[in-house]
Amino acid sequence: MARPPAVRSGPTINDIARHLGVHKSTVSRAMDPERRHLVAEPLLGRVEAAARELGWRPNRAAAALSTGRSRTVGVLLPDITNPVFPPMLRGIEDVLDVHGYFALLANTGQGRDRPGGVPAAQAAAERMLAQPVEGFIIATAQRDDAWLDALQAEGARIVLVNRTRDDLAGPASQRPPLPAVVSDDRLGMRLAVDHLVALGHRHIAHLAGPALLSTGHARRQGFEQALAAHGLSAAAIVECASYGIEAGDAALQSMLDGSGSGSGGEGAGAGAGRAGGRPTFTGLVAANDLLALGALQALQRAGCSVPQAVSVVGHNDMPLLAQMSPPVTSVRIQLYEMGRLAAQRLLDEIAGVPGAPLTRVLAPTLAVRGSTGPVRDDR
Amino acid sequence: MARPPAVRSGPTINDIARHLGVHKSTVSRAMDPERRHLVAEPLLGRVEAAARELGWRPNRAAAALSTGRSRTVGVLLPDITNPVFPPMLRGIEDVLDVHGYFALLANTGQGRDRPGGVPAAQAAAERMLAQPVEGFIIATAQRDDAWLDALQAEGARIVLVNRTRDDLAGPASQRPPLPAVVSDDRLGMRLAVDHLVALGHRHIAHLAGPALLSTGHARRQGFEQALAAHGLSAAAIVECASYGIEAGDAALQSMLDGSGSGSGGEGAGAGAGRAGGRPTFTGLVAANDLLALGALQALQRAGCSVPQAVSVVGHNDMPLLAQMSPPVTSVRIQLYEMGRLAAQRLLDEIAGVPGAPLTRVLAPTLAVRGSTGPVRDDR
Repeated sequence: MARPPAVRSGPTINDIARHLGVHKSTVSRAMDPERRHLVAEPLLGRVEAAARELGWRPNRAAAALSTGRSRTVGVLLPDITNPVFPPMLRGIEDVLDVHGYFALLANTGQGRDRPGGVPAAQAAAERMLAQPVEGFIIATAQRDDAWLDALQAEGARIVLVNRTRDDLAGPASQRPPLPAVVSDDRLGMRLAVDHLVALGHRHIAHLAGPALLSTGHARRQGFEQALAAHGLSAAAIVECASYGIEAGDAALQSMLDGSGSGSGGEGAGAGAGRAGGRPTFTGLVAANDLLALGALQALQRAGCSVPQAVSVVGHNDMPLLAQMSPPVTSVRIQLYEMGRLAAQRLLDEIAGVPGAPLTRVLAPTLAVRGSTGPVRDDR
Repeated sequence: MARPPAVRSGPTINDIARHLGVHKSTVSRAMDPERRHLVAEPLLGRVEAAARELGWRPNRAAAALSTGRSRTVGVLLPDITNPVFPPMLRGIEDVLDVHGYFALLANTGQGRDRPGGVPAAQAAAERMLAQPVEGFIIATAQRDDAWLDALQAEGARIVLVNRTRDDLAGPASQRPPLPAVVSDDRLGMRLAVDHLVALGHRHIAHLAGPALLSTGHARRQGFEQALAAHGLSAAAIVECASYGIEAGDAALQSMLDGSGSGSGGEGAGAGAGRAGGRPTFTGLVAANDLLALGALQALQRAGCSVPQAVSVVGHNDMPLLAQMSPPVTSVRIQLYEMGRLAAQRLLDEIAGVPGAPLTRVLAPTLAVRGSTGPVRDDR
């Protein structure tokens, strides 16, 4: 029941130009998504109206076959239902739209890996390459993602966003690095820790993200470095199984359960979180906001009020944190701008624009809300 | 600087079959996204591994040109940063993924309309048709969207999701109807109103969605019908300019401001919302959750506690409402399932499966949380 493609012989650009009494090069520019910004708005609107009226349609499939210019870009996300990703995707799509490109989307998280251990992101990228797409924006990178090497070796254009690979040191150093647009994860953790220390907190714990992700790794390092700068060490650190609410709840619960009594002298690790029936920490820094929301659940169950008993800081400043109960203090990273810059960087790669910096690192700020407050005197 | 397309001569399906010692029809099935579910998993994994090892790649651009089968579907959303849409998009994408299809995404809200009054959704659909896509899932429909007629007349396959056109009555009745997957908006409002009435509320106001959207229109009708079934009429109704937090805040504020004193005798409309320094209503039903969150802001500013002074019900049960302050009671519509069914319906259209019902209407339920409570005796 396959129908013919939506590509037909019909009016040409010459027909439109004649109809409007303008030069065909003007129409050609107006109809080229990459050059239409060169045509001023009233005229652009007239050309588009005439093209619509006459039934003109570009032949993109033929163009894709002959030139590789499909005007599509593959976007690999872990899961669009994680509230961090919609603003990032919107930033990507806003830039692509201006240049006449579309995003081809794949969610590659949550058990989508192919049998035989092929990561879902790799399988999606390979299928996208065959569409073809002109390049990839990848938000799913793991620090040691080897399949990206193969994709890169095939000449695919790739820009990483939010998460990076380990390119710079150790056994991975042979890899040609990939362009990336990320937030300064270490600075973010310094803002969070400095805020808690300024409020008088000295016993601060960390819900770490998965260590195989650059954000989990760098934020944990940033947390420990920021504490060390104040002469402090971590009251407890637990690595969460994933970046979700349930994982944060379980990890915080494990901190509380691990050691029903004692001094918390086990140092950094599960079981160091509770002494004498209450947490050994008064401050908690989570590696992302969903982990922070999970921690709030677990603290509430345990009867620990926030911020009176424990102050909690999230990371990413995902939408609607100000409406939460309590409103959540969070490290605000530039989600929309990261998406925007990643798309711009990829389009520059496609256009062969030289001299772009390999990595863009965006500075976070801190959004202070009701989940953090001064350490209590009675502790 | 255009590169050649990512389509090369290379190993064939025969080569893979020989390599594995299986029949080439098995490989052909495994490599066809639409038929690969016919190949059992261990063998499927072996075929995919061999294809990867040998560097086999399908030639999708050529297939798209000769058959129109691009294996892409256009998805038009108002704005992915509205938390209602990520679960819907995830449902769409989960079904497409199983069948080897990709979603091509466009956000068409917020000022993206083209000069000359061409709706952004229309412009995006026309560009998508030229890619080509094999069909459309459209979440942006307005009740009188005339451009959908033209798209439909060109033979494009279309499934509407969440919102519909007016197909059934009045001057629009000549239109061939479009397949749609929607929630039962009137039933949803009945659940909300019945809940408030059961809590003792008799003075109930409505923040209506835009009347040009089927959801805004049907939910307002449903609200009024549900009240009438209890012998009540609306304490106030204000139509919001859009489905966002700010629009809900402004509309609730206009309810409170419109009439600084008086009995609220103006009936349904702005200015009927406040009497003697407090709202004339004890219950509020919002047409979506973002409007409800905006109302919560405005009520808090006005010193009206929720649910003590006013009980508030949202609609859609978008993610994280349980974490809000207060947790928001909401009509739970099947966001993920709507997306899943819309994608399945479109793939059935593409495959020519006969006999599918034109419209699927999914039943909502009510998620009761802290933003609603009994009417107070002292009122």
